[in-house]
Amino acid sequence: MTTPSGKNIDTVLEKSSQYRNWGKWGADDELGSINYVTEEMVVAASHLVRRGKVFSLALPLDSNGPMNGSYGRINPVHVMLQDGGDIASGAQDHLATLRYTDDAAYLVLQSSTQWDALAHIYHDGKMYNGYGTEQVHSGGALKNSITNIKDRAVGRGVLLDIARFKGKSALATSEPIEAEDLAACAEKQGVTVGEGDFVLVRTGQLEERRQSGSWGDFAGGPAPGLAISASDFFCPRHVAAVATDTWGTEVLPNETEDVFQPLHIIMLVNAGIYLGEMWDMEALAADCAQDGVYEFLLVAPPLTVTGSVGSPVNPQAIK
Amino acid sequence: MTTPSGKNIDTVLEKSSQYRNWGKWGADDELGSINYVTEEMVVAASHLVRRGKVFSLALPLDSNGPMNGSYGRINPVHVMLQDGGDIASGAQDHLATLRYTDDAAYLVLQSSTQWDALAHIYHDGKMYNGYGTEQVHSGGALKNSITNIKDRAVGRGVLLDIARFKGKSALATSEPIEAEDLAACAEKQGVTVGEGDFVLVRTGQLEERRQSGSWGDFAGGPAPGLAISASDFFCPRHVAAVATDTWGTEVLPNETEDVFQPLHIIMLVNAGIYLGEMWDMEALAADCAQDGVYEFLLVAPPLTVTGSVGSPVNPQAIK
Amino acid sequence: MTTPSGKNIDTVLEKSSQYRNWGKWGADDELGSINYVTEEMVVAASHLVRRGKVFSLALPLDSNGPMNGSYGRINPVHVMLQDGGDIASGAQDHLATLRYTDDAAYLVLQSSTQWDALAHIYHDGKMYNGYGTEQVHSGGALKNSITNIKDRAVGRGVLLDIARFKGKSALATSEPIEAEDLAACAEKQGVTVGEGDFVLVRTGQLEERRQSGSWGDFAGGPAPGLAISASDFFCPRHVAAVATDTWGTEVLPNETEDVFQPLHIIMLVNAGIYLGEMWDMEALAADCAQDGVYEFLLVAPPLTVTGSVGSPVNPQAIK
Amino acid sequence: MTTPSGKNIDTVLEKSSQYRNWGKWGADDELGSINYVTEEMVVAASHLVRRGKVFSLALPLDSNGPMNGSYGRINPVHVMLQDGGDIASGAQDHLATLRYTDDAAYLVLQSSTQWDALAHIYHDGKMYNGYGTEQVHSGGALKNSITNIKDRAVGRGVLLDIARFKGKSALATSEPIEAEDLAACAEKQGVTVGEGDFVLVRTGQLEERRQSGSWGDFAGGPAPGLAISASDFFCPRHVAAVATDTWGTEVLPNETEDVFQPLHIIMLVNAGIYLGEMWDMEALAADCAQDGVYEFLLVAPPLTVTGSVGSPVNPQAIK
Repeated sequence: MTTPSGKNIDTVLEKSSQYRNWGKWGADDELGSINYVTEEMVVAASHLVRRGKVFSLALPLDSNGPMNGSYGRINPVHVMLQDGGDIASGAQDHLATLRYTDDAAYLVLQSSTQWDALAHIYHDGKMYNGYGTEQVHSGGALKNSITNIKDRAVGRGVLLDIARFKGKSALATSEPIEAEDLAACAEKQGVTVGEGDFVLVRTGQLEERRQSGSWGDFAGGPAPGLAISASDFFCPRHVAAVATDTWGTEVLPNETEDVFQPLHIIMLVNAGIYLGEMWDMEALAADCAQDGVYEFLLVAPPLTVTGSVGSPVNPQAIK
Repeated sequence: MTTPSGKNIDTVLEKSSQYRNWGKWGADDELGSINYVTEEMVVAASHLVRRGKVFSLALPLDSNGPMNGSYGRINPVHVMLQDGGDIASGAQDHLATLRYTDDAAYLVLQSSTQWDALAHIYHDGKMYNGYGTEQVHSGGALKNSITNIKDRAVGRGVLLDIARFKGKSALATSEPIEAEDLAACAEKQGVTVGEGDFVLVRTGQLEERRQSGSWGDFAGGPAPGLAISASDFFCPRHVAAVATDTWGTEVLPNETEDVFQPLHIIMLVNAGIYLGEMWDMEALAADCAQDGVYEFLLVAPPLTVTGSVGSPVNPQAIK
Repeated sequence: MTTPSGKNIDTVLEKSSQYRNWGKWGADDELGSINYVTEEMVVAASHLVRRGKVFSLALPLDSNGPMNGSYGRINPVHVMLQDGGDIASGAQDHLATLRYTDDAAYLVLQSSTQWDALAHIYHDGKMYNGYGTEQVHSGGALKNSITNIKDRAVGRGVLLDIARFKGKSALATSEPIEAEDLAACAEKQGVTVGEGDFVLVRTGQLEERRQSGSWGDFAGGPAPGLAISASDFFCPRHVAAVATDTWGTEVLPNETEDVFQPLHIIMLVNAGIYLGEMWDMEALAADCAQDGVYEFLLVAPPLTVTGSVGSPVNPQAIK
Repeated sequence: MTTPSGKNIDTVLEKSSQYRNWGKWGADDELGSINYVTEEMVVAASHLVRRGKVFSLALPLDSNGPMNGSYGRINPVHVMLQDGGDIASGAQDHLATLRYTDDAAYLVLQSSTQWDALAHIYHDGKMYNGYGTEQVHSGGALKNSITNIKDRAVGRGVLLDIARFKGKSALATSEPIEAEDLAACAEKQGVTVGEGDFVLVRTGQLEERRQSGSWGDFAGGPAPGLAISASDFFCPRHVAAVATDTWGTEVLPNETEDVFQPLHIIMLVNAGIYLGEMWDMEALAADCAQDGVYEFLLVAPPLTVTGSVGSPVNPQAIK
């Protein structure tokens, strides 16, 4: 099967083979490209902080989120276990003087601003580093859980504001971002992308939907995003992670009719590069445009849900 | 009512009055002592990073956590929405080539390593800055939600390793930590505690229970912790937050029979100081003891659950 | 405020006063009109069974249900704790020979075919029998929980098939069912409605939406249903319960602009009559039309969730 | 492997072969032994009702239930979505006059009084009627879900009160119930057990634990229960279902060291007999002892959770 793009499973297999890092850090590695991040890089990234401005890149976790319920992916459910009404009505009068509130949430772990774990995607029965399907059962992931990076999601962040670079508030629906777009944007912004970097790619789609007042088909519908060629930009540069402000990182519909989300297979399954999705980069991007500085300290720790294959995250970009 | 300690509700009222910050940052403030943290402090804290070592201070979120189910506080429930078995059995064969796993969790927001929001505690019908009980209903907190600090939980962290200071692996059950202990520990460690700091106080209790193989009555039972006098150390110094490695910050049983958790009333409700609980400081403390450096960059972003009165957190201490 | 119908809060207050049963069965009664059902009635109802045909009146509990998520009312969430994939992949090989599957569900208790508890509705700070708001706190209902009828939802069921009576597949949107409609339908069907009966009123709306392939605004939107005058039919007859095939029992928009769901106040809060909603009566109604028998044994036991204010139910109509 | 009982996997295979009903009602049957229940039996069972007394056999669904959390089996979690505090504090003042409460629950479907679906147990990769492991994936059961009996759990109930028969308040821990015990108990009670019956077997263990104030190891620990020979009583008689007042139907430890829960394999997987567990038979049993009538109408409809492999149930025994 060959699509109008001329790309198909063969393209994916070729790139996968080209960029595969299985075994590179040992047969039992579960960290993937985060291995590129050295302690020296963490020091250097920390010293990028000059103004002390902190940007939270997380969407609110609530019932107005972008999920539509398909495949069990519902928006966050927040419930109160104790609230002010209980205090006012005397329901806590068994306590001595102090009163309290308490709450809980049911969170689909990839329902909003998130990290994909290396255990999130399989191709041909294997996930990153060759682990099989028996490694993720109903008890959770035995290998490649996102908890592996509980203390490793720290490093140099770089924003590539593709929308601004193209002079748009947001890319068009299904507009692809090619390797050359990424390179040209970096050059124009005066920033380099290198080993161990956490690269944030802004399409403007998230903000566009937010402004419209409705998420519409944000989750899974046609969207701007990374083309397969983006792997030629990211993989040779040895980046640690790539995040976008879209639902699924990649341009949708995908270039390959016979492969859904081909870049996930190339970059996450084979190269072991972490993918972040639905990161809200608006305030950060505006600030970068203003001061011309597109690099920062990024701290984006996942939750430590044992065996989890993804995680909500409140990424902190510190300039 | 006067307890053997000579302390009771009057003590709490007096300290509350002494350290109350209501209105200090405006009648509509919801940030409390995090207001002390300036952008300059964030820059300075970032520049404390010298070795690039990152410590995650979060416990695993799973069914083996410290909760016992009382008052609805159950341990995290992790469920798989899609797993390797589905891939192997063909349940995803409607997808083109790619396969995936997915998961969700029910999290009591204060069931493990956590932040208390300023909306978490009430005294006499009021929470921090005087907001009433009608401000937290079944829909969540309208004021003082933990989401207010989604981009503010960044600054200078200081560890006060009280257990090591006292030459113990862990404080004794119900051993209080007084203001003078905190001051003496800081002095011996050669570190100062000042405005805008996030202070981590280690009792060793968490590790003791972990080593024992059972949490026992960790959640709510007798415990070492901060005495009321600790407020005389923290409040005048204008700290932003205080975290411990115990369930409830304070020494238990409390010094006051007529007030449960009196320091929560003084420090959280009145001074607006954020409290962190069940922070796992073991690896960090061992490192600090080794290199003699007890200050670091702390980045501890809460989840952004709208209206939440607490949050799980994976605090990052970066040295 | 007077609406085009000429009905308003005064109408509701008048009917409420007229049909109020508070205190009738004691100051501490929590059963309401279910008190009318005697053991003799249960015997008689059981002996109505002549053909041994059983009809389940429950909708499927799944993500395709009629909820739209407003006010936290999401459709059922079903998760597998163990499944066939675990068995196939060896994840249960620690068990001797036997293998198993297991599951769980998050159920909003009134998200589908359900019972309203007498604790579900308040008017002027009171629920049935005068209990106050402090009787339902975050720990659940202390009074009037649906669990009170865990062994009392058994008796004579009577179907009033209003849609067929009016010669329609379904009533029109916002078409009211008045007392005289109920009486005329019963007469035409040759069935009486009397003390202790569980009366099922069919509008055809549920089936209409199911046939259309979309629930649309079934939950809370304009709908056919009982008018205020229906209370003049049900209350004097001392029925035990009334159920419909609509989301909310009553005609929507309501006749009263200043009172939402006025019949809930008159019949549930004041008369103590249980209301069932979203009961799927299609197969039952077709059968009744065929054999001309509109009475049957009804067994509709709620779940026993302690303190619950409503319950999913799988009502059994046995002819 | 041969145990002291002389029973092992060979015993299980032999009985499984002897009582296997696969294909008996067609290659695509999903009902199993419930097929034995005819409409005539439903009529006859209904006419057993003579006094109009209804017994609910369900335990309360709450945090005090018998689960201990192993394998994700936690006790029910009940949360309020709206409560009296919201009404009192004005949080519902956007509504016209009416006020309401609302709630939800997270229910492990087999955490309390329950039905096992025929999809609940596998042996050698097959469940009842030969369906494979691919028929229960993370989306639920495609075959043999408990929803298949949504309108079929109605028929003649028979109580075999083994504890009373043996002159005990409760059987001893690990006391087996053999085929001859069942036959002798029925004879002494003057009741027959026959085709299509729902047989309730009382050990007294549930009440014993309730009286003790602690469930202890009720869930999974040593327990009285049915021995393998019980299959020789139930299977030839063509019963529809068997329920006990214990966690797991069978005597524990099992007679077979190499097979966990062997009777589940023989009776549920092979004969297709439904198993009910944790049914609270105390009040019913006392009543039967008093009036000497051990047969009744049983109505025990499962919830209709699509694809569920078990269900909480509030069984109604009507005499």
